[in-house]
Amino acid sequence: MMSRRIVLLTEGHSEPHAAKTACSLLRYRGEEVVAVLDSTQRGKPVASALGVGTPLQFVGSLEEAPEADTLLIGIAPPGGRIPESWRPVVLDAIGRGMNVVSGLHDFLADDAEFAEAARRHGVQLVDVRRNNFREIARYVPLRRESLRILTVGHDCSVGKMVTAIETTRELERRGEDAYFIATGQTGIMVSGDGLPVDCIVSDFVSGAAEHLVAKHQERDYLVVEGQGSLVHPSYSPVTLGLIHGARPQGMIFCYEIGRETITGIPHLPIPPLDEIMRLNEQVASVLHPCRIIGFAINGRLVGPERTDEECRAIEERYGLPACDVLRHGAAKLADAACQLRQELLSSAR
Amino acid sequence: MMSRRIVLLTEGHSEPHAAKTACSLLRYRGEEVVAVLDSTQRGKPVASALGVGTPLQFVGSLEEAPEADTLLIGIAPPGGRIPESWRPVVLDAIGRGMNVVSGLHDFLADDAEFAEAARRHGVQLVDVRRNNFREIARYVPLRRESLRILTVGHDCSVGKMVTAIETTRELERRGEDAYFIATGQTGIMVSGDGLPVDCIVSDFVSGAAEHLVAKHQERDYLVVEGQGSLVHPSYSPVTLGLIHGARPQGMIFCYEIGRETITGIPHLPIPPLDEIMRLNEQVASVLHPCRIIGFAINGRLVGPERTDEECRAIEERYGLPACDVLRHGAAKLADAACQLRQELLSSAR
Repeated sequence: MMSRRIVLLTEGHSEPHAAKTACSLLRYRGEEVVAVLDSTQRGKPVASALGVGTPLQFVGSLEEAPEADTLLIGIAPPGGRIPESWRPVVLDAIGRGMNVVSGLHDFLADDAEFAEAARRHGVQLVDVRRNNFREIARYVPLRRESLRILTVGHDCSVGKMVTAIETTRELERRGEDAYFIATGQTGIMVSGDGLPVDCIVSDFVSGAAEHLVAKHQERDYLVVEGQGSLVHPSYSPVTLGLIHGARPQGMIFCYEIGRETITGIPHLPIPPLDEIMRLNEQVASVLHPCRIIGFAINGRLVGPERTDEECRAIEERYGLPACDVLRHGAAKLADAACQLRQELLSSAR
Repeated sequence: MMSRRIVLLTEGHSEPHAAKTACSLLRYRGEEVVAVLDSTQRGKPVASALGVGTPLQFVGSLEEAPEADTLLIGIAPPGGRIPESWRPVVLDAIGRGMNVVSGLHDFLADDAEFAEAARRHGVQLVDVRRNNFREIARYVPLRRESLRILTVGHDCSVGKMVTAIETTRELERRGEDAYFIATGQTGIMVSGDGLPVDCIVSDFVSGAAEHLVAKHQERDYLVVEGQGSLVHPSYSPVTLGLIHGARPQGMIFCYEIGRETITGIPHLPIPPLDEIMRLNEQVASVLHPCRIIGFAINGRLVGPERTDEECRAIEERYGLPACDVLRHGAAKLADAACQLRQELLSSAR
């Protein structure tokens, strides 16, 4: 991916949950971000609203931003639609010769006004979710020396992408041959590769996961970004497509302390963690042995002290490493991945 | 659905597995079928090749068929493509003013030559798999008095649609208020209603199943056509979408005696039935209690005697009814559904 000069658009939605795409770009592609645009936050430090983004301050318009070549839509709302109030900003960007990148279900290029403006100004509209992937999973042979780790969780938006990226980066820092497999729009924007599995026709969703791990199987470690949760009735098919398509030998279980009901379905309690963990292991192990190798615990709602306590309690209870990857790093998870790979290589001998 | 006069096209593929769409139309919409077209079988009894279709004989061309208003593509190949050799027959049908109905992944209406011919002759090209369904499952409240039964199985193409239709019809014969929920192209062609869940974007597949059961929840019995299998890595996401979207309280487990490897993946053995049954019950019961209430056993590979033995053995082993719905009818399965509904109504009091 060529280096870009990006303005992130978070207009009216500058908080970590709604603007999770913007946060991830700031965290993992920060060197490319020249400004964050939210006229309602103009002049304030970006980090005070999003938790990342030092030393940037919000700008109120493209006029105020440093020169840039890309406008990137920084939110991923459930409906997938572009707020109508953003239309003038998108058109302004196109008029300035900037490409526009979006991960929404509503495609920019399908909007007649945007498409016409882009044609006139010779810029690209990049819809990260658009794809025409149409291959079923065929359970192709995969290289034995390639360890596949998938992040799973008790719900959506708990840190599965961040955990996968942090674990990959920690492995790389140690000189291991590791690769992050992006499966969602934000992961794809960060890595410049991957497939948006939640936007693929259901007959082909496990095929897409298989395609990605097969394509990169020359690497020693593939860390696959998980999606949804096996117990979330809206998204469980996508989760299962990743489990049966990517065929992980190990999983990292991600959860947020204090979350009690399933995202978007406030009348449905999240089942006990033990039950969710067992279900993930059973469903994955239908095809070949697969087990949870560690925990990534998100302490956003409860703060550091309570999170550290939880990590200690979980380690004691399961005899597996547990950490908050944003504060502790992913060293323990990388250790667990290395250990599992050694184990599989020795047993293969 | 208005009554039609249908010619089924099975050219060169007149055997029960490849032509399963044709077989189901003959079985459940036989009164509408005026001819079956396969020039390689011309003059032979249809039933000798397909096992259903008495008293029809194959015709070699549309010229030889009785007057008809619809050509229906009678096969559903894995690739989803229309064989090139069928092109002249489809164009001939359009030229005669017939509508053409297809359940393939390749859409007739996206073919420039077919589309232009259809426009010129004023006929419809009906692509049953085409849809633009885009709603996530929201776990909406469902009427307690509506019993939802889903057919599941150990693999694909084992009789999940036939079992669902036979069970619905048996309930109707008893005067019960039962409805068949079609979820695949053949079921939709038979019932004139439903959604092709395997062709829906993966984020919305459980939403589609929920939409169908919510729409018909005024009925006392909804019998939902299952798809794929939880242990088939190519199709398990679709299967799970039905389980978590349709939220059955009971499941009928369908399997074929003698099938040893997963369809399309000859190097992958089918896991033991016990394991598959347990997995289905666990995955379904994450949301609310759900259990297997009976077995539909397909004896195509082994014949009646061996099948009857298997039914007796399974009934003894699990204490649940087992039958071959095509030979025995679905009386035992209808009994089990009535019994479960009574049980749920009493416990709700």
